[in-house]
Amino acid sequence: MSEHQWIVTLDLEGVLVPEIWIAVAERTGVEALKRTTRDEPDYDVLMRDRIRLLNEHGLTMSVIREVISGLSPLDGAADFLARLRSTHQVIILSDTFQQFAGPLIAQLAHPTIMCHRLVVEHDRITDYQLRQQDQKRRAVEAFRSIGFSTIAAGDSYNDLSMLRAADHGLLFRAPERVRLDNSDLSALDDYDDLLSAITGLTA
Amino acid sequence: MSEHQWIVTLDLEGVLVPEIWIAVAERTGVEALKRTTRDEPDYDVLMRDRIRLLNEHGLTMSVIREVISGLSPLDGAADFLARLRSTHQVIILSDTFQQFAGPLIAQLAHPTIMCHRLVVEHDRITDYQLRQQDQKRRAVEAFRSIGFSTIAAGDSYNDLSMLRAADHGLLFRAPERVRLDNSDLSALDDYDDLLSAITGLTA
Repeated sequence: MSEHQWIVTLDLEGVLVPEIWIAVAERTGVEALKRTTRDEPDYDVLMRDRIRLLNEHGLTMSVIREVISGLSPLDGAADFLARLRSTHQVIILSDTFQQFAGPLIAQLAHPTIMCHRLVVEHDRITDYQLRQQDQKRRAVEAFRSIGFSTIAAGDSYNDLSMLRAADHGLLFRAPERVRLDNSDLSALDDYDDLLSAITGLTA
Repeated sequence: MSEHQWIVTLDLEGVLVPEIWIAVAERTGVEALKRTTRDEPDYDVLMRDRIRLLNEHGLTMSVIREVISGLSPLDGAADFLARLRSTHQVIILSDTFQQFAGPLIAQLAHPTIMCHRLVVEHDRITDYQLRQQDQKRRAVEAFRSIGFSTIAAGDSYNDLSMLRAADHGLLFRAPERVRLDNSDLSALDDYDDLLSAITGLTA
């Protein structure tokens, strides 16, 4: 048995649940909400644009919450996470906002999640607040500083610093480009394979 | 709405579940396992004595696991924790061992827990390993270092450094002596009151 104590950190969107902004765009018909950092590399510009769009279309916090409540975790995600949590400590590290994550996290049986927050005033989304820059990497470093070994899994560019900071980083359902740029990292696509990899590394 | 992101850290034994060593002593009839740091202030001496007793009485890891599987969370604890987790991020900080906590944590729907570990060889408990000294305090400090505000609740002397390191520390079902020595801390005894206090502090 491993003499380490482990924390497994998982990205949320793309790994356990759908991309939330895209789902909101599809369900509300506001196509412009589909823009991502690939279209607008300045995150602050992107977010201010998204908040402007929400308000223009009358998408209050309660409307958004309703939309997100209609989403489901990815097929097999809830079962995978339940099995992983029965043997491992898991913390979700996500760059989404707590108000967006809430309804999906409930469907995943409330794993601990660390993310950011939207500023909401009288049901209107007025601003956003990042808890800290590069929060995924810094959380992994914090867990290591209190004696944990870490495994991190994610699918995208904003996961890479977390994957690199962890004892073991795993790509999960990553786009081809991310895999090619990080060919030294194992890339998995199936929950059973991810569970086996984590179990193997922590055995 | 609070502009902070909060993590609530809770002690396990005495707050959500019974004192595990005492329960093991009662269920196995090995009365000497009831000794605590009040009887033997040197924790290492106490633990080596406990491990010796376990082995002398044939209490293997699987026997202990069976015994602990027969325990239940305190009345109302599971419901309290479920309600708290529906709105807050919660991490259990406990000085117990992961093998002891496991069956009880499962009954609490798998909140994240940070604790210590027993060294087990061929089903025999041979040693123990603290993840780090004063781990409760250091975990709270780590959460604060990554941008969280913190509320901590616990019942005993080993919780005080955590309570003092948090933004808000609450005593829960603490013995009279602990309350008297820390009369500046709010002392609560009821889960509804604890939930109200946490909700009020984070509103």
